[in-house]
Amino acid sequence: MSNDKLRKRVLSGIQPTGRLHLGNLIGAVENWVKLQEKYDCFFFIADLHALTTAYDDSKALKNDIKQVAIDLLSAGLDPGKCVIFRQSDLSEHAEMHLLFSMITPVSWLERVPTYKSKMDEIKGKDLSTYGFLGYPVLQAADILIYKADFVPVGHDQLPHIELTREIGRRFNYFYGDVFPLPKDLLTDFPTLPGTDGRKMSKSYNNAIALSDSPAVIEQKISTMVTDPARVKKEDKGHPAICSVFEFFKIFAGNKKGTVEKECKAAERGCVACKKELAQYVIKYLEPIHQKRAELEKSPEAIDVMLTEGAKKAKIIAAETLFEAKRAMGLLL
Amino acid sequence: MSNDKLRKRVLSGIQPTGRLHLGNLIGAVENWVKLQEKYDCFFFIADLHALTTAYDDSKALKNDIKQVAIDLLSAGLDPGKCVIFRQSDLSEHAEMHLLFSMITPVSWLERVPTYKSKMDEIKGKDLSTYGFLGYPVLQAADILIYKADFVPVGHDQLPHIELTREIGRRFNYFYGDVFPLPKDLLTDFPTLPGTDGRKMSKSYNNAIALSDSPAVIEQKISTMVTDPARVKKEDKGHPAICSVFEFFKIFAGNKKGTVEKECKAAERGCVACKKELAQYVIKYLEPIHQKRAELEKSPEAIDVMLTEGAKKAKIIAAETLFEAKRAMGLLL
Repeated sequence: MSNDKLRKRVLSGIQPTGRLHLGNLIGAVENWVKLQEKYDCFFFIADLHALTTAYDDSKALKNDIKQVAIDLLSAGLDPGKCVIFRQSDLSEHAEMHLLFSMITPVSWLERVPTYKSKMDEIKGKDLSTYGFLGYPVLQAADILIYKADFVPVGHDQLPHIELTREIGRRFNYFYGDVFPLPKDLLTDFPTLPGTDGRKMSKSYNNAIALSDSPAVIEQKISTMVTDPARVKKEDKGHPAICSVFEFFKIFAGNKKGTVEKECKAAERGCVACKKELAQYVIKYLEPIHQKRAELEKSPEAIDVMLTEGAKKAKIIAAETLFEAKRAMGLLL
Repeated sequence: MSNDKLRKRVLSGIQPTGRLHLGNLIGAVENWVKLQEKYDCFFFIADLHALTTAYDDSKALKNDIKQVAIDLLSAGLDPGKCVIFRQSDLSEHAEMHLLFSMITPVSWLERVPTYKSKMDEIKGKDLSTYGFLGYPVLQAADILIYKADFVPVGHDQLPHIELTREIGRRFNYFYGDVFPLPKDLLTDFPTLPGTDGRKMSKSYNNAIALSDSPAVIEQKISTMVTDPARVKKEDKGHPAICSVFEFFKIFAGNKKGTVEKECKAAERGCVACKKELAQYVIKYLEPIHQKRAELEKSPEAIDVMLTEGAKKAKIIAAETLFEAKRAMGLLL
């Protein structure tokens, strides 16, 4: 494998902050499973990114990293078709990050919309660290070091890709053309709500994990927020503002019409509706659960897979870092 | 060599921003030459630090790095007695820097006295970069990754060492005792003035390089600022405010009394005084010039020396990084 590519290259990463949940599956991983068929894909577990917010709770990372790797394989990523690796296994990401830090104005980082919003979102934790401010610099290093052609993103991450392009452009301006500028592969998936109606997110504690048992899935779905105006079963429901209906659209699309009609006509109660939904979600996750059970039998194979992935990634990353250092005049 | 040390360890670095000058020699390198006899010394050429200010002019680095290495050896550093290496040769510095970035509050960095003063000092260049802000984080990585016991510094750098200790302390608090906290080895050398009377510094363009030829030394010293109140030879001089007299104290200490007396009595003119000084400086630098002439005959030996130095440094740096990553839970 070299930088001379036959297929266009795609890069994406996911943070190992706990086990992956349905929001990750629908919003990212299912797309990755499709992308691996068509592109030269590099998917990484972003443990260094996780440290920007989880620096005071890093002891959990070790297990989380393994669990996320199992989640990714269970959901259909195939190490025979794509490269799966762990970010911190490659020193090249840190080196590229340091080199990019020299040319990145602080004001660019302060202007990233997610900087202040995430600080507000994650309460009770001091995020005024140098590393949290530099999150987008590390992200630029992750992407540009693989000379990725495409980065699958949602709308909210577009400013990050734009910043990556700015950093690449500035590097090329100072030192000569090293980095092709990546394009976004905009994927407009619905944002899956969590059990409380907000966006599903580990930090909101409202997530259904891919590895949750059927009993836990039933229990979690039973607590889901529905139409708040519907107090009794006799009240007519409003599926448009109901999280449970959002789930039906995704996990049991063929039932969508029936559920909508019955809910609006007050012919379907929320309790029964949730019980039905739980069965669809459990069925949806069945192959993932089966694959996970298999993988859990040989956890050492996960380590081997990640090590092998890191080796493949390193071939590209080391080559690009060498090019970048040469362009900057750092090689003797 | 391992982290179990028989001798106390000393670490220091110097930026390859042009050839070394008399200020570097008197303020740092002569001290290093003494330290290598007594301590387990690691001296590095801080090319990554140089990028924090010289990012837009990095093409010169390649040659500057070699010249600084030649300067260090010419001045008496002995690769048989100490480890001399180039910072960017070790990916471990960048990795440690990234890990420390996660736990370093931005406010600590903004409060470093040199942050704003250096921004003011270096005019006409945009230093509002992420890398320039993070200079002390990289410095902490440089020092702590060798578990240095002592860092030779001048008074103005004490806040940097204090910040290094703070970062080490914070790491140990979060993840367990990995880093011993280094002490400063305060060396109170006189600050050598440059030809314009300000501190000798490459950025002020007032420096006399160790590699300047006798003719250039004579020429530069002839332009030195003396007592501004002394217009004619008949005016009595004030050695206490004269840069030339400062030089006499350092480079011809035994002539100090005579020069002071004659200057105060208007028996010694500035032109003659400078001519005399130039001869002393040339004589002082003679062994350094001879060593340089020798070293320049085989420039490839310099590359080999730096590569060997990096190998020795890497043994320690890799071990400490491994410990740090294990403490953080980053190893599987």
